[in-house]
Amino acid sequence: MRYFMSFSYDGSKYKGYQKQPNERTIQKELEEAITKINSNQEVSIHASGRTDAGVHAYNQKAHFDLDNIIDCDKLKHSLNSIIPDDIYIRGIVNVADDFHARFNVKAKEYIYKINMGTYNPIEKDYIYQYNKRLDVAEMERALKYLEGTHNFKSFTKSDEEKDDYVRTIVQTNLERDQKNLNQITLSFLGTGFLRYMVRNMVGMLIEIGEGKHKSEDIIKILESHDRTKAGICAPACGLYLKDVFY
Amino acid sequence: MRYFMSFSYDGSKYKGYQKQPNERTIQKELEEAITKINSNQEVSIHASGRTDAGVHAYNQKAHFDLDNIIDCDKLKHSLNSIIPDDIYIRGIVNVADDFHARFNVKAKEYIYKINMGTYNPIEKDYIYQYNKRLDVAEMERALKYLEGTHNFKSFTKSDEEKDDYVRTIVQTNLERDQKNLNQITLSFLGTGFLRYMVRNMVGMLIEIGEGKHKSEDIIKILESHDRTKAGICAPACGLYLKDVFY
Repeated sequence: MRYFMSFSYDGSKYKGYQKQPNERTIQKELEEAITKINSNQEVSIHASGRTDAGVHAYNQKAHFDLDNIIDCDKLKHSLNSIIPDDIYIRGIVNVADDFHARFNVKAKEYIYKINMGTYNPIEKDYIYQYNKRLDVAEMERALKYLEGTHNFKSFTKSDEEKDDYVRTIVQTNLERDQKNLNQITLSFLGTGFLRYMVRNMVGMLIEIGEGKHKSEDIIKILESHDRTKAGICAPACGLYLKDVFY
Repeated sequence: MRYFMSFSYDGSKYKGYQKQPNERTIQKELEEAITKINSNQEVSIHASGRTDAGVHAYNQKAHFDLDNIIDCDKLKHSLNSIIPDDIYIRGIVNVADDFHARFNVKAKEYIYKINMGTYNPIEKDYIYQYNKRLDVAEMERALKYLEGTHNFKSFTKSDEEKDDYVRTIVQTNLERDQKNLNQITLSFLGTGFLRYMVRNMVGMLIEIGEGKHKSEDIIKILESHDRTKAGICAPACGLYLKDVFY
């Protein structure tokens, strides 16, 4: 029987989603818990994709198979009682055996939070603290140049070897927090993302907000297919996998 | 020379504000840092009051004395570079020698955050997760009975011996988060608060929201001067010292 779950996590105390030897990862915690419930018969989890160390998720999705039929609500409660309290299973449903949490992804939404105001120690692992004013209107214009289907090689991990760097960003948004105008949230809805792509795009947008580049420079940088032409990689703490769509 | 500072902290990894032997506290971290800057001559900090273990502060205030005259902005930057990143000095100014950060307090504002929606692991140390629906309108009515000058003995720490339990709550408020209607923030502006008073009032308000008591029962409970008549003590993680007024 195939089970499909959605879950959220605070990534700040993990070395990312994906299992690695001798490291605390989200996948490791979840697989150990499900294996325990499955009478210690090993279970593998297939997520929609990995998130890097320090990146958070509101609504990550994954599937796994169990030989036994377990009530989904009971399974959810059992799992939540075993896993650490910085991971939370939001829901579990049964799906067809040919449904795959990674291969069937239609779109993903990421958000990135920036604080230009006074540093707030309560949010240190949950927002990127940026101690200069940014030209938010210019960043918003730049964001629009990223929408559409482009080769995003300039915005991926520099040593990432891929057959295909073309991805489609369906929608972007920049929102100011209405209670704290110094906080902005960038959002990116896309059919797929390369490694570090969101953080590299945000790094570029920040340099545009600082006045180091103009918004329309994005066009040339996309066309260059050259990682060194784009900006810095923004830190992980501001990034959230908001949702995965099928 | 007397220095007056405002500072914020994430209380989740501290045993409260006040210094205690062999415990990690906010006061200890700050005094060690200021002492270091003061050529290792011991400095005592006098805060507006303590906060308990796990309680946060947006704008706590304190004063301390140094023999040397140090530029306030430089002092702020030096301190922020030494203290842990879950404490932040927002500002330092010089004040008259007879100004006292505790004795001169005119009012304090506390807020308390409750989440009735899906558990969010990212906020586990920063909001009280309450897994039932609360009657928010009834809680709002109850809140208004707490306003004014009352004997708050029913709402203090049960073994707290005081000469005077009379305090004045100037204003209360209940606000729903407009983006997430399942989150509410209670606020209390008062001229003074007894130990555990906010958390005990919130515990009572939650029991009223659950339907265990009516809003007007607050009147009898206040008049009883009996801690056992009021509700539970709400957990520390939802509580923030928002500001101190002089």
